[in-house]
Amino acid sequence: MYKGGYTGKILRINLTDHSVKEEALPFQTAKDFIGGAGFGIKYLFDEVPANSDALGPDNKLIFAPGPLSGTNVPCASRMAVTAKSPLTGAVGMGLSGGHFPVELKFAGYDALIVEGRSKEPVYVWIKDGEVKFRSAKTLWGMKTTDTQQIIKNELNDQNVRIACIGPAGENQIKIASIINEWRAVGRKGLGAVMGSKNLKAIAVRGGEKVKVNDKDKLKEARKVFTKAMKDSPVLYPAFANLGTPMVVDHLCHMGIFPTKNFLGTGAYDPIEQIGTAVQATRNAGKEHCYGCPVGCSQVKLAKTGEYAGIMTEGPEFETMYSFGGATGVENIDAIIAADRLADEMGFDTISSGVSIAFAMELYEKGILTKEDTGGLELRFGNDTAMMAVLRQMSYREGLGGLLADGAKIAAEKIGKGSEKFAMHVKGLELPAYDVRGAKSHGLNFATSFTGADHCRGYAFQEIFGIPVPKEVDRFTAEGKGALTKWNQDIRTATTDAPTMCGFLLDMAVVGIATRNTADLMEAITGISYTPDEILSVGERINNLARAFNVREGFTRADDTLPERLMTEPIPGGVSKGHFISREELKLMLDEYYIARGWDVKTGSPTRATLKSLNLEYAADVLNL
Amino acid sequence: MYKGGYTGKILRINLTDHSVKEEALPFQTAKDFIGGAGFGIKYLFDEVPANSDALGPDNKLIFAPGPLSGTNVPCASRMAVTAKSPLTGAVGMGLSGGHFPVELKFAGYDALIVEGRSKEPVYVWIKDGEVKFRSAKTLWGMKTTDTQQIIKNELNDQNVRIACIGPAGENQIKIASIINEWRAVGRKGLGAVMGSKNLKAIAVRGGEKVKVNDKDKLKEARKVFTKAMKDSPVLYPAFANLGTPMVVDHLCHMGIFPTKNFLGTGAYDPIEQIGTAVQATRNAGKEHCYGCPVGCSQVKLAKTGEYAGIMTEGPEFETMYSFGGATGVENIDAIIAADRLADEMGFDTISSGVSIAFAMELYEKGILTKEDTGGLELRFGNDTAMMAVLRQMSYREGLGGLLADGAKIAAEKIGKGSEKFAMHVKGLELPAYDVRGAKSHGLNFATSFTGADHCRGYAFQEIFGIPVPKEVDRFTAEGKGALTKWNQDIRTATTDAPTMCGFLLDMAVVGIATRNTADLMEAITGISYTPDEILSVGERINNLARAFNVREGFTRADDTLPERLMTEPIPGGVSKGHFISREELKLMLDEYYIARGWDVKTGSPTRATLKSLNLEYAADVLNL
Repeated sequence: MYKGGYTGKILRINLTDHSVKEEALPFQTAKDFIGGAGFGIKYLFDEVPANSDALGPDNKLIFAPGPLSGTNVPCASRMAVTAKSPLTGAVGMGLSGGHFPVELKFAGYDALIVEGRSKEPVYVWIKDGEVKFRSAKTLWGMKTTDTQQIIKNELNDQNVRIACIGPAGENQIKIASIINEWRAVGRKGLGAVMGSKNLKAIAVRGGEKVKVNDKDKLKEARKVFTKAMKDSPVLYPAFANLGTPMVVDHLCHMGIFPTKNFLGTGAYDPIEQIGTAVQATRNAGKEHCYGCPVGCSQVKLAKTGEYAGIMTEGPEFETMYSFGGATGVENIDAIIAADRLADEMGFDTISSGVSIAFAMELYEKGILTKEDTGGLELRFGNDTAMMAVLRQMSYREGLGGLLADGAKIAAEKIGKGSEKFAMHVKGLELPAYDVRGAKSHGLNFATSFTGADHCRGYAFQEIFGIPVPKEVDRFTAEGKGALTKWNQDIRTATTDAPTMCGFLLDMAVVGIATRNTADLMEAITGISYTPDEILSVGERINNLARAFNVREGFTRADDTLPERLMTEPIPGGVSKGHFISREELKLMLDEYYIARGWDVKTGSPTRATLKSLNLEYAADVLNL
Repeated sequence: MYKGGYTGKILRINLTDHSVKEEALPFQTAKDFIGGAGFGIKYLFDEVPANSDALGPDNKLIFAPGPLSGTNVPCASRMAVTAKSPLTGAVGMGLSGGHFPVELKFAGYDALIVEGRSKEPVYVWIKDGEVKFRSAKTLWGMKTTDTQQIIKNELNDQNVRIACIGPAGENQIKIASIINEWRAVGRKGLGAVMGSKNLKAIAVRGGEKVKVNDKDKLKEARKVFTKAMKDSPVLYPAFANLGTPMVVDHLCHMGIFPTKNFLGTGAYDPIEQIGTAVQATRNAGKEHCYGCPVGCSQVKLAKTGEYAGIMTEGPEFETMYSFGGATGVENIDAIIAADRLADEMGFDTISSGVSIAFAMELYEKGILTKEDTGGLELRFGNDTAMMAVLRQMSYREGLGGLLADGAKIAAEKIGKGSEKFAMHVKGLELPAYDVRGAKSHGLNFATSFTGADHCRGYAFQEIFGIPVPKEVDRFTAEGKGALTKWNQDIRTATTDAPTMCGFLLDMAVVGIATRNTADLMEAITGISYTPDEILSVGERINNLARAFNVREGFTRADDTLPERLMTEPIPGGVSKGHFISREELKLMLDEYYIARGWDVKTGSPTRATLKSLNLEYAADVLNL
């Protein structure tokens, strides 16, 4: 039963003049974009002027939880943080969990838009309806765990939830992250955007309940959802106990776990050194995001040598790849230490590890010398050198200065043909999948609106063998265009916009996702969608995001992969011999643009497609 | 108006069989010993068998806040933690603040007695009347900040207060501390006692109010107390903004700030490098213990080199001495980093720094060589070497293994006449006062029941020139016996037993202390004392503590000072030429024992004295 008009609130914080404004959430925005990633893309496209400096005052940082956040729907404490990325120049969007997202809802807001640039370092303190700007001068330079604790003490409230940056963000390192609790908005340098605004942290506390339109309907929809979770053969039996590291083992068995900057055989040998086997000796507890009955976060404690005593929430699968696989580091305690250091300094663990791996390859090849590394033996596997460089990167010291802004920018500075060893798409370093053996996943890297991003359109068909909407062969290129579109749209629509934990889609609910999301949305907001309309929201968001990138100058030519993946087959292991040839990529891209209704030549959305998605105004902006 | 019998509760936790017992606090114990240090000494003497192994199951660890803790008396969130010290073999007692002490009261307890030894690592969770033993297997090895955070997350309550140990305590390092929040029960190796019991942490949460016998009387007594605080010329104007580092400047001006293991001129040059001047560049906020309007804890942030980004609560004055003055380290950022590392590993910052300074002198003198140091250039001032050794000490690695149990034990192992460079009394390393220029303070170091301890009988007459009970000449030995007794008794009676922050006595309330303590005690407990009776409680506690030490084999011969202080005059500066000759020490000791009514030959309390203090049973125990 629809009980009335859905309402919401947007909080605008202008750091230039320290002004604050509350706005009603336009109903059409709510309906067409749902929330989270949807709101992020909508406000980014509409409000950040074309060709703005990503580190200038015109860029905006949009924190948006979703309509499911803060309700009793499990695993919905998520938010999308969106801005123009200083790393890629394209859409910069990252998602994070923890408690901060729901706390923003409890404070009364469906989105927080941060604008301008403060003269002095500040942090923002949002308590229910009230916003205060507080000096962060003394916090400037502080690591992220301490920053959060000091702010809690200063506000005399240990339950305040905080998103903050570390030294990397302050120094506008283009691979800097935003850290909330021990979760991260890791990728695309959004920490640098926060740093460029002189914003050290956002502290939030709220006491409002999230309104629910129809509690009985919610109860029903929630029951369907939690049943799907319970029915999953992996979610509770494995994932709750092992967390994402179980994917290390899985990908090694598939031969697509990248090692030594993608020079290796697609498997870590032996996987016992960094895979789930590590749990037996390094486990130190687990963590839950708000309202999550699974608790995939595994806390680990380093036990040996100079790293003994260092704890970290993680390292997640991706970090085991970046600081372990990609760099060839075999010491799990070093990987634990690097994960913590990256979180404390406020770095994207993927981009920082892969950038160091890139430098290791250059050192092995003689393109970088001891003179460049300041005497460090920067070979694959040298964990001491890895840690030293990672620390240097936070302050742009020594070799760290060269690598601080990621592999693409480093390659531009180094020259000497080094670009072909830089594993990135659009400037974003590759995550932990050797897509030479998972081609839809590769097409997603090439076409995702954020660059090489495993979170945009995860090809669980290829990675986990889930036959939804159909079974696929991971080594085949053909047919992957439409599949990748579908993966991107369903992910955006059912997890990133509402907002919901992405793992659930992959592991439990994909079969019921659009129908159930429609039911949950109607129960909470009263807005009715068909399952297809839910999927359309995902398509709409992907189109508007693409429109943003087109406006910033991106074309089909940017939808590509690192040269190595297109020219060098995987040299051994289960996926030996496979690669994505230029012809295969071309084929997949053609299929993809056609499936999307985009211009095959330019890769731009067409007016017709935008119009069909109620986005004709974007066509006007792009002069289509 | 006396409203009824005073009651209290003791919680006994036996780790051997995981049993728990609540006992009524005996009224006579409450009256005769007040609380805090008083309860600690009483239960230690009565319950820990003679010649027990300090690291064995017979030792007990007594956590005792005082009757003022948890009331609205400011600055009373303090506790004494008492056990037999593994470092000295004498009474081991340390006081700490923060929030843990009042939380223990709010949970309903006037003291917590930890007995036995757990088979497996555990932590104890006390919530109001309920006690749970929880596995700490996965926490074993973890640093102290993370330990506290992980436990809070595990208990799903961010307001739990926790006292814990780090790797140093687990490894039974004899200079290990107990850390609660960022405060420490720093000295005498009580962290090792906790480690020997396989007890990683104690977590407390309580909701009870502390009962007050007469609220009107409390209001009056509190008014007198807070007025004295406001009237202090230093407490709010200086101490609240600068914290203990202001004592660095002060002692340098007096020429009694020890440098380079007491080889220097008694002043840090220039003091701007580590004194209060540092506040301008490294300040990163401040902290308050529960109910403290002053907030002396200054948070500092390292800004340069490899230490950049490291924050610490502190370093307090004593730590600026141990990691700065004593070691000759000039880099404030290294001192900040060492303070944090020591807190994270759970080390006494004084003993660890002074032990390293001792090793530096040996290295400079050629008694230790590069072979001993594993290649480290362990010279005065080498902060990198200091940090490396400090880390090694946590795990008894390399040279750290030699130094881990303090300077006295290290000297015994090294031999070669090194003992004369080990700056300790009874095994406890000297705190930050070159007592060659403050002789009552020196006599206190020699006679305190815990060894060289600045917290037992602080000679504020000498250090701050406060003429209470009379003006004194700091360079004179004569007359210091009775003064030292008085300083020890008033400190124990008015701060360590009730319990109250020691800084208040020194800086604000000494003139009114016994009268006001009597008033506060009567208001809260209903038990009446005259001011002299309050002082007698201090005397009683000091006598029973001495009786404990006598039973453990300590005699007059142990009441001494490091050879250097008795043979080498301060070589320069304002206090140049002064030292405490053996004759002066003998004179002061004679005076002291006479003032105490102790046997001048043996240094033991007499039966008559013990009897006069209602402690005749101790004379029986000692066969006097």
